[in-house]
Amino acid sequence: MLRDFPLKPQQPLETPKAINNFDGTVRYNPHIMTNGNTRAPFTFDLEARQGSARAGIFHTPHGDIPTPIFAPVGTQATVKAVTPVQLEEIGAKLVLSNTYHLYLRPGADLVAEMGGLHQFMRWPRPILTDSGGYQVFSLSEMNKIDEDGVTFKSHIDGSMHRLTPEKSIEIQEKLGADIIMAFDECAPPYERDYNERAMRRTHAWAERCLKAKQRPDQALFGIVQGGVFPDLRAQSAEFISSLGFPGHAIGGLSVGETKDEMNAMLEVVNPILPENKPRYLMGVGSPEDLINGIARGVDIFDCVLPTRLARHQAAMTRTGRVNLMNAEHARVQRPIDEACGCYTCQNFTRAYLRHLIVAKEMLAATLISIHNLWTLLQLVRDARQAIFDGTFDAFAADFLANYPKQAKVEG
Amino acid sequence: MLRDFPLKPQQPLETPKAINNFDGTVRYNPHIMTNGNTRAPFTFDLEARQGSARAGIFHTPHGDIPTPIFAPVGTQATVKAVTPVQLEEIGAKLVLSNTYHLYLRPGADLVAEMGGLHQFMRWPRPILTDSGGYQVFSLSEMNKIDEDGVTFKSHIDGSMHRLTPEKSIEIQEKLGADIIMAFDECAPPYERDYNERAMRRTHAWAERCLKAKQRPDQALFGIVQGGVFPDLRAQSAEFISSLGFPGHAIGGLSVGETKDEMNAMLEVVNPILPENKPRYLMGVGSPEDLINGIARGVDIFDCVLPTRLARHQAAMTRTGRVNLMNAEHARVQRPIDEACGCYTCQNFTRAYLRHLIVAKEMLAATLISIHNLWTLLQLVRDARQAIFDGTFDAFAADFLANYPKQAKVEG
Repeated sequence: MLRDFPLKPQQPLETPKAINNFDGTVRYNPHIMTNGNTRAPFTFDLEARQGSARAGIFHTPHGDIPTPIFAPVGTQATVKAVTPVQLEEIGAKLVLSNTYHLYLRPGADLVAEMGGLHQFMRWPRPILTDSGGYQVFSLSEMNKIDEDGVTFKSHIDGSMHRLTPEKSIEIQEKLGADIIMAFDECAPPYERDYNERAMRRTHAWAERCLKAKQRPDQALFGIVQGGVFPDLRAQSAEFISSLGFPGHAIGGLSVGETKDEMNAMLEVVNPILPENKPRYLMGVGSPEDLINGIARGVDIFDCVLPTRLARHQAAMTRTGRVNLMNAEHARVQRPIDEACGCYTCQNFTRAYLRHLIVAKEMLAATLISIHNLWTLLQLVRDARQAIFDGTFDAFAADFLANYPKQAKVEG
Repeated sequence: MLRDFPLKPQQPLETPKAINNFDGTVRYNPHIMTNGNTRAPFTFDLEARQGSARAGIFHTPHGDIPTPIFAPVGTQATVKAVTPVQLEEIGAKLVLSNTYHLYLRPGADLVAEMGGLHQFMRWPRPILTDSGGYQVFSLSEMNKIDEDGVTFKSHIDGSMHRLTPEKSIEIQEKLGADIIMAFDECAPPYERDYNERAMRRTHAWAERCLKAKQRPDQALFGIVQGGVFPDLRAQSAEFISSLGFPGHAIGGLSVGETKDEMNAMLEVVNPILPENKPRYLMGVGSPEDLINGIARGVDIFDCVLPTRLARHQAAMTRTGRVNLMNAEHARVQRPIDEACGCYTCQNFTRAYLRHLIVAKEMLAATLISIHNLWTLLQLVRDARQAIFDGTFDAFAADFLANYPKQAKVEG
């Protein structure tokens, strides 16, 4: 028999101590009950604010999520090249997994039969699943959309499948994540007509998702769409907010637009979304986008970037990326980042990591993934502390001044 | 700066308690000084025997090695897909790394510049390096042997290189392992003339290695050759034993012969090798070969088998191999082995491991490697305890009765 989880998932989160120079912003502790079929412990304690930036705790059946938070992505029920114990050591508090992938392989029924996603992948803390919508549009070999849903061809074996709002919720209920997402349509960011249609469909589907949802131990988040069009974004934020979701996601960003456009949309959407519920910016995960998102009131992020870059020899640091394959690192006895506290930087030199890469050793991906995930998790931990300390503005300005500029959002 | 190793490499090994029903065999504690340029702490405490099976402790500058022991192979300064911390958790006490590979990439000078192999790969416990001889014959694209050494073409980039006994020792001194090996020639097992020539060359080279060796903090082991020919094996064991090495290796096995032939050679060689020095059977690592080797007086083993099988979806158990790719495991909620104490079996189902394999996830190789290495380490731990308990014969008979028969040795 499998042992019980080695972790106690319900253990209370260590709350940062009260800070003397706390800047006096409102401290929320509403313990809101937000949705007819969502019961406690889905409450969001907003603990501190500085400007639009917020620090809070989202309580879930599998433990507390301190926000702002970055969620590593475990597409196929595994964060690539990293064990759950290593994730725990990195300080991950929330992991995202993909409904589209798990539905196709190994199948939602199998995951349910195995006790659900937490048990299957042995991650005892909170999990978030997306709705499958984004992957149906981006990964499937063919897809045909109508008002009811989407018919698509599997990228794995070419078999035909159909997803509807009801089907997406059914799958996500079988997977059993703590946070699940409404089925939405993500349009290319610059096509206005398409974005209007996709937004309307997303709104109709959001209502159907709410109706379809049955499990009380999952929080269903609604998704705001609208491309790069401020009026559509505002309209979508207002409509989705009106439906009473316990949390809200901002979709359709990090799909090809510029960083300025993304930031502008956040400035439209976040002031409309209710303050007392968590806000999740989907698919965003470069260090500067996290800081810019937090500064504009985002609480939750996810992205494949840290683990994907790791498999392509790139280490993330607070001053930009380091390509460890470069010959210049061959004899460098320093770690990736001397200030970094991760297992990789505490132990291994750039010379060793480069050797692993050149020798095509799998350990390279593991060690660089650990470092990259730590870098983003430590960044949100520091941002959170800075919000408590009332120093977030300076922290963000300092960070952005040292980070190389890039025009486009990278997802 | 890198932190100090998290482990205390010199901490004394926990010695099994004196056993009431100890079978009365001789207990050695000779603290031998075996070689002019090898100083303490290279001592071998032989603590218990049952028949030819022995339990002991080999003391090295990086800590104690309890014997019998199995050494995971880290060919390119990494045990594939496994971190040093995971190796520590598995209970590995000795790791082998390959001189041929490290000489070609990243180069012995670079490893020396980085503080030596322990520091480079962050393995604080004992390391053994082979001489490079075996790989020169098996891996290089071309090789030309003469009495002085071997000229060969790199399998990586086709560049030409030359290894001699002196050069092999020089490289191994730069790498800095605790146990290093004499440069030898490994002939195909059934060619008598070739084996005679190779044995004579191996003997001459063993003497040259002893002369070339300078570092006092490394133990140089001599290697017995002789193919499957009892008279050559006896001659080689006698000659190599006469040179005063602090330990002896049995080479040229696990290279295509049958298990019966290998066992017969062990029965010729081990009674000739001095009792008070460790015996190392090179390249052997299937469960039944470990038990058969221990029963015939072998103390140290190494093999790529557990990690290589793991990358090919095969899990090792005490009753044979399990191919986790098979569809029969798709919905199996049990671990690989319910009696196994490894991280993988404590946490993950066969269904999950099969999912990782089918989805081509790297975590599969990591988790199965952890399991396979644990299986062999736990097997030698149990064998060692059985020798202390005086129950090794029954333990071995029971094990072999339950293990599927195979004719050929697999290396």
